[in-house]
Amino acid sequence: MSDILNDAGLDLLFRDARTHNGWTDKEVSDVLLQAIFDLAKMGPTSANCSPQRIVYVKTQAGKEKLKPALMAGNVEKTMAAPVTAILGYDLEFYEQLPKLFPHTDARSWFLGNDDLIEATAFRNGSLQGAYFILAARALGLDCGPMSGFDNAMVDKAFFPDGKVKSNFICSLGYGDPSKLFPRSPRFDFDEVCKIL
Amino acid sequence: MSDILNDAGLDLLFRDARTHNGWTDKEVSDVLLQAIFDLAKMGPTSANCSPQRIVYVKTQAGKEKLKPALMAGNVEKTMAAPVTAILGYDLEFYEQLPKLFPHTDARSWFLGNDDLIEATAFRNGSLQGAYFILAARALGLDCGPMSGFDNAMVDKAFFPDGKVKSNFICSLGYGDPSKLFPRSPRFDFDEVCKIL
Repeated sequence: MSDILNDAGLDLLFRDARTHNGWTDKEVSDVLLQAIFDLAKMGPTSANCSPQRIVYVKTQAGKEKLKPALMAGNVEKTMAAPVTAILGYDLEFYEQLPKLFPHTDARSWFLGNDDLIEATAFRNGSLQGAYFILAARALGLDCGPMSGFDNAMVDKAFFPDGKVKSNFICSLGYGDPSKLFPRSPRFDFDEVCKIL
Repeated sequence: MSDILNDAGLDLLFRDARTHNGWTDKEVSDVLLQAIFDLAKMGPTSANCSPQRIVYVKTQAGKEKLKPALMAGNVEKTMAAPVTAILGYDLEFYEQLPKLFPHTDARSWFLGNDDLIEATAFRNGSLQGAYFILAARALGLDCGPMSGFDNAMVDKAFFPDGKVKSNFICSLGYGDPSKLFPRSPRFDFDEVCKIL
């Protein structure tokens, strides 16, 4: 293999990929949902803490449960998507560290330090959200990530034990290119980067 | 091209990639640092808000400025890395929305809402941190992301205007495989995912 990704791969993941708002009828198999996770979980997190927890909402009943929490502009496209993943993070992730980071007592770094727990879960859960998006694209899916929903309502409906907080949601499927918006501009390197 | 990434690409980004602790002497060119950014910036953020701000620390003087903020266990490997990127997020990102999201007044969604500003900057800055790691890997680099440093000291030294907050740092280079730790375990699908 080459030591770098070829142009087709860079296009698929970064350069040609778009956030989709409309979806074709093509279904997304459960095997593919597992394959996304099995790739994305390999991405790095701090002390391998892996706080992400996922609910894939695929059934009509599941979508109806999600619907009241969505901002008005996000209802139609979300209900039409083959799957919408709720990407959450577990505020008790540190209880899993004896398993995930077995060579030292990393659990004790967090226990009782709520600010560190919250920041670590949110930061690393978000990293895992991005790995998830790029893993889905790598497997040929299109993504529609969204923050426009009521987090407290989603938490109550899908994570009733109170330990897991929703981060963002991400519809998955095969996008309808006719529903794309024009791509928004990005920064130039010199606007936001420095080399010291 | 294929509609999905080939196995070599999946290995490069996810399955064989590792967090590195030791580095070969091979340098990282400034062109490559720009290329990472130019790929990673294409990843999706909420309302295209793109809050990430990057300082690539490459010189000895820059590394000496970073050194006192590092946790003891991270000093040697960070000083030895060809480049260490400080990945921050701009708490005044919304001032750029008229440029980045020009078709509506998205700036007004944020102005004066400090909780929404903080959550949006941290979530999306973290997403961009993950895009950065995978873009660097796609270009053949190895990464050593780290949260083990004093954020307030780094902010004071590298973002003195107070608007940008450091998120995490990430060393870049060509890893020395002899310094790798064994890979830590990951969750199985059923442990942290549900399909509803």
